[in-house]
Amino acid sequence: MSTGRLHIDLGAIADNWRALDAMTQAETGAVVKADGYGMGAAPVSLALAQAGCRRFFVAVAEEGAAVRQAIGPGPMICVFGGHMAGDAALIRDHQLTPMINSVDQMLRHVEALPGHPFGIQLDTGMNRLGMEPAEWAALRDIALAQNPVLIMSHLACGEDPAHSMNMQQLHAFTQMTDGLNVPRSLSATGGIFLGTNYHFDLVRPGIGLYGGLPFIDAKPVVGIDLPVIQVRELDAGETVGYANYFTAPHPMRVATVSGGYADGLIRIIGTGGLGQVHAGDIACPTVGKVSMDLITVDVTHLAEIPDTLSILGRNQSIDTLAGAAQTISHEILTSLGARYTRSYHE
Amino acid sequence: MSTGRLHIDLGAIADNWRALDAMTQAETGAVVKADGYGMGAAPVSLALAQAGCRRFFVAVAEEGAAVRQAIGPGPMICVFGGHMAGDAALIRDHQLTPMINSVDQMLRHVEALPGHPFGIQLDTGMNRLGMEPAEWAALRDIALAQNPVLIMSHLACGEDPAHSMNMQQLHAFTQMTDGLNVPRSLSATGGIFLGTNYHFDLVRPGIGLYGGLPFIDAKPVVGIDLPVIQVRELDAGETVGYANYFTAPHPMRVATVSGGYADGLIRIIGTGGLGQVHAGDIACPTVGKVSMDLITVDVTHLAEIPDTLSILGRNQSIDTLAGAAQTISHEILTSLGARYTRSYHE
Repeated sequence: MSTGRLHIDLGAIADNWRALDAMTQAETGAVVKADGYGMGAAPVSLALAQAGCRRFFVAVAEEGAAVRQAIGPGPMICVFGGHMAGDAALIRDHQLTPMINSVDQMLRHVEALPGHPFGIQLDTGMNRLGMEPAEWAALRDIALAQNPVLIMSHLACGEDPAHSMNMQQLHAFTQMTDGLNVPRSLSATGGIFLGTNYHFDLVRPGIGLYGGLPFIDAKPVVGIDLPVIQVRELDAGETVGYANYFTAPHPMRVATVSGGYADGLIRIIGTGGLGQVHAGDIACPTVGKVSMDLITVDVTHLAEIPDTLSILGRNQSIDTLAGAAQTISHEILTSLGARYTRSYHE
Repeated sequence: MSTGRLHIDLGAIADNWRALDAMTQAETGAVVKADGYGMGAAPVSLALAQAGCRRFFVAVAEEGAAVRQAIGPGPMICVFGGHMAGDAALIRDHQLTPMINSVDQMLRHVEALPGHPFGIQLDTGMNRLGMEPAEWAALRDIALAQNPVLIMSHLACGEDPAHSMNMQQLHAFTQMTDGLNVPRSLSATGGIFLGTNYHFDLVRPGIGLYGGLPFIDAKPVVGIDLPVIQVRELDAGETVGYANYFTAPHPMRVATVSGGYADGLIRIIGTGGLGQVHAGDIACPTVGKVSMDLITVDVTHLAEIPDTLSILGRNQSIDTLAGAAQTISHEILTSLGARYTRSYHE
């Protein structure tokens, strides 16, 4: 067993969903796109369905089909990407609910699957997905006559409560949807913390379920332990790893662990100056560049070298590791590769 | 079909292997670790075995088992990580050849699997994997009595022909191995271009097989086309994507494509200023941050918007995309996720 070990706490995901659900009067869905943020769409969706979640969100129809296979009939599975060319059979066979993003998608949907449930995605200023105000004004009466099951939009700056964009988008959303008598959704995790005005009928957390900010009280979900392959003594002046990136300033002991950027331990962790792993509660800085399959670590100060060193766990959160990789926790999670030995806990 | 489409040219991989093989008098192996650099260890190994490759290299025993299942009995499958605790059954059942990295691994191997083939990995200065000179001096006679099938080391700076480290490592390697009458290997792709002295009995290219530098004449292996979800017109001053990262300086047309950092299109591509995709031969810069599942692109200058935009292909190599992501082509390849619709070409 020389691969890294990835521990995923499904109970923590369900607890995070319940905690977020308790924060609003709205229904609480769950975003399980990108293979459940890398945690496994099937086990994550099943755990959330058992916790009471009845509305799931994925990016593309293929992901929706996988979630439907996991959870069975009943809960709604919404597709952010809408109804793309060639998607009709997937949408029909797996009872998916596309969030229609444009007039083109609306026409495609009603032609291919008349009467099949759909939602509407509106653009309120992020300019990424959804109908523009003018487009919506033109299509609105026709779309409403087809009985959309949800009208939604997405916040560009929801994780920054001070950003004036939030209020702008809220205003645009209410202008476009007030009085329509269709369930509405604007907020992902960040929006839940912006106040009741942002909750509408449904909130749809993603990163908060998986233990990431801005849900500061989230239970951690993921742990990674990397097996130590070998340990060596270095003289002062010896170099470590590719391009001789690190030079030992004094005699050192260096451990090589099994795990690298092919496991989603992003390469910049080794060069950004903030990379570390833990032996129990003791931090050990990475030295040298992260390789495809290996990371080298300064263990000079350890009295004993354990069999594994932890890169995610109680001493290093996904947000801390994201900081070391100059990114956000979302990319840490979705980058974790297929090589780990995965274990799921309830 | 709203997922990105990943095209993998197995014929190009085989051609690259043949071209590298023709450059040396040594045997040519192939590095297929990290799921064949993300291209699929099974199809890649099978294509290379059919081209004549008889020696494969993986990082961990689990990967070796997958390669053995793909190619069947016969070719040697070497494990860089050596013989780790718990690996004996995998090594035995799948006839893997661990590259022994330490005295501990040597003892573990001969105790668990006496007589089972193994190789020796030596550290010649990279300080990452392999036995140190002193360790090797102490163990050498015992190890040689067990008939190792290969003695290898790895260059830290092989992609930089001008680096003095190459000569230092070459010198250390010959000092540790001259006169031993065991096949030797020092060079991966970079080392092949350092000259005959570096070739020994076996070279073992990795990145060159997959179309990456420093093999400048490599055939490109991978292409990615991203479906266009929708296109919108922007007024000057409108913002795009998370954190309002991009502001339109003039009226623009922006396309949203299906693909994001969950597909290994590294997030920094959107903020580094060099991100682009292509419509045919016309470059289109990315605008705004890369999202988990989506990228926004300036298509103002296109007369017609195609159904897909290409982010890897004849107009953008893995090395060019790596530059836009501030990394190396290896990380581009190994980051490509599971969500693509993959197609293999011979």
